[in-house]
Amino acid sequence: MSADPILLTPGPLTTSVRTKQAMLHDWGSWDADFNAITARVRDSLVRIVHGEATHECVPLQGSGTFAVEAAIGTLVPRDGHVLVPLNGAYCQRIAKICKILGRRLSTIEYGEDQQVRAADIAQRLLEDASISHVALVHCETSTGILNPLQEIAQVVARHGKGLIVDAMSTFGALEIDARTTPFDALIAASGKCLEGVPGMGFVLARRAVLEQREGVSHSLAMDLYDQWVYMMRTTQWRYTPPTHVVAALDAALEQYFDQGGLAARGAAYAENCRVLIAGLNRIGLRVFLPSEIQAPIIVTVHAPDDPRYQFKRFYDAVKARGYILYPGKLTTVETFRVGCMGQLGASGIGGAVDAIDAVLVDMGIQTRHPERQRA
Amino acid sequence: MSADPILLTPGPLTTSVRTKQAMLHDWGSWDADFNAITARVRDSLVRIVHGEATHECVPLQGSGTFAVEAAIGTLVPRDGHVLVPLNGAYCQRIAKICKILGRRLSTIEYGEDQQVRAADIAQRLLEDASISHVALVHCETSTGILNPLQEIAQVVARHGKGLIVDAMSTFGALEIDARTTPFDALIAASGKCLEGVPGMGFVLARRAVLEQREGVSHSLAMDLYDQWVYMMRTTQWRYTPPTHVVAALDAALEQYFDQGGLAARGAAYAENCRVLIAGLNRIGLRVFLPSEIQAPIIVTVHAPDDPRYQFKRFYDAVKARGYILYPGKLTTVETFRVGCMGQLGASGIGGAVDAIDAVLVDMGIQTRHPERQRA
Repeated sequence: MSADPILLTPGPLTTSVRTKQAMLHDWGSWDADFNAITARVRDSLVRIVHGEATHECVPLQGSGTFAVEAAIGTLVPRDGHVLVPLNGAYCQRIAKICKILGRRLSTIEYGEDQQVRAADIAQRLLEDASISHVALVHCETSTGILNPLQEIAQVVARHGKGLIVDAMSTFGALEIDARTTPFDALIAASGKCLEGVPGMGFVLARRAVLEQREGVSHSLAMDLYDQWVYMMRTTQWRYTPPTHVVAALDAALEQYFDQGGLAARGAAYAENCRVLIAGLNRIGLRVFLPSEIQAPIIVTVHAPDDPRYQFKRFYDAVKARGYILYPGKLTTVETFRVGCMGQLGASGIGGAVDAIDAVLVDMGIQTRHPERQRA
Repeated sequence: MSADPILLTPGPLTTSVRTKQAMLHDWGSWDADFNAITARVRDSLVRIVHGEATHECVPLQGSGTFAVEAAIGTLVPRDGHVLVPLNGAYCQRIAKICKILGRRLSTIEYGEDQQVRAADIAQRLLEDASISHVALVHCETSTGILNPLQEIAQVVARHGKGLIVDAMSTFGALEIDARTTPFDALIAASGKCLEGVPGMGFVLARRAVLEQREGVSHSLAMDLYDQWVYMMRTTQWRYTPPTHVVAALDAALEQYFDQGGLAARGAAYAENCRVLIAGLNRIGLRVFLPSEIQAPIIVTVHAPDDPRYQFKRFYDAVKARGYILYPGKLTTVETFRVGCMGQLGASGIGGAVDAIDAVLVDMGIQTRHPERQRA
């Protein structure tokens, strides 16, 4: 396994050997041994946000987007009205989901390098009392920008509205406390900061809201109410669970808590991010976001302004040196992305920076040149 | 791993060590190495039904039910009218999906021990020209009954209607040939007869139909048209794929073809089923279905008619002997189920029968008594 390249992506991530080895068993999805795993995972996920008194964890088969759609479809009533502040591809996706599901939609547009502002949300909630929910992406993985969740949650709660948080790439690494950050739903997935493998999402839903959402969902498979009620009654998943993925998440969570939980995971990623940005700056690459609004999850980097640069060649050469980068997602400027998450191997993030540096030199791209650095 | 009990269930199954070991790697979901796996899996799945000229494989994250819902939601136009013959829990589920998705629904009701009859379908299609689609479950896993797919497909095609087949528990073991059995969609999943691990479904959709289904789906995540178009354009999955599950399926398919493909898999399951039923009869247990309509997939067995029998105790004791059974799903008679699929270990299905026999003896249940056998 040491030959596998390190994944510097927003997920799937490089997971620990122990997490992968948890998949070397088969479980009966009806069996008590597997149901105990499900129960343990659900309890752990609620505990991470201190939601024991108020929230229920409803796991769902599929990717994180499935869980986001399920949350909108189940928790926002059919006559609801969702305000979605837009500063990246994942809020755009939520807006698209609202449209397809026939939920009334309003948006606030920002640049991709601008944080969502709580004051703008407050303004819109004042102006339009028909808005029932705000849907926010905590960290926009398309750029790596962090949105001010706590401030926005206060505004939304003060107006008596529901907050739906896509915390896909922050859950487990950045502190979110259900006791002080009110939300109706918080969504994440197995293969992100918890460092499990991909294949299941989950929604931490406010119990008092979830209880009232029978028959709201547009979908059978993505009906979180049905999934929850069935699970409460039987301890099982409603339809075949991705047993190996759930077992891997269970193993990943055990390691997560053993290693110090959220504080340790967050500190490790922050350090990865710091070392990464310092390293990139040192070799003459510029990051897209100012550090004040950069989440320690994934860093968007400007492509070198050099005709010899081609992402595909650059990517393949860095991969040959053992690291898998991620393409940029901005339409107006050419960028690539480097993740700060996962098991980054013995040489850590420094190894990735060295690989990028060596490849740029090989490609004859002189980013270190003083003029280029400021270009 | 030898200590894990053998799963005698309709899936998840006991998979080979090689299949599980394929999950000991992490893949980037954007990376060419993983995209090659996806392409190989899609090609293989189409090839199994000889659909290269006519059908596209659209894989989907989640369980088989997600793929069934996605197929109905994408391939049946919103003003479509679906005829669902009902002889078990999985056809009932399709009917429920039609209702939730707002597709007009008609049903034909059968007993759970009765096959769907092609003549009845023909009659209904004659009576009601507004029916646009027939949705059939090939093997009703709730009992193990096999429905006459080929005959029904001919009738549906003759009337110029679309056929949607839930082949969840038969795909890869029972012959289905797209060249002679016309269908618009055939749905199955990773963790059934192909002996992968659970976590992804797939739809083999008629290309000429799929091409016309832009914007039909009720869902973003389950939009097969969108998933297909994106995959054709990028070679990638639209949202994070369950990478390890896909890699395990790739490994399982390699073994499947190495071992002789469908003919060999089907023969092995048929032999398992024959040995199982003979063994159950020998120890005085009665199977629910006559053998002419029993699919070689899963066998429903009448619970012993004895006050000392309790499923939970029976299940736990059989599990302690290394085999995991499956509960019955009939509402009117008490049954349990025994699967014929998966890697059944050195002692094979005979070991399972011996375990069941020994447990019944331990529980003081005398099924072997001549009067009991005919009770």
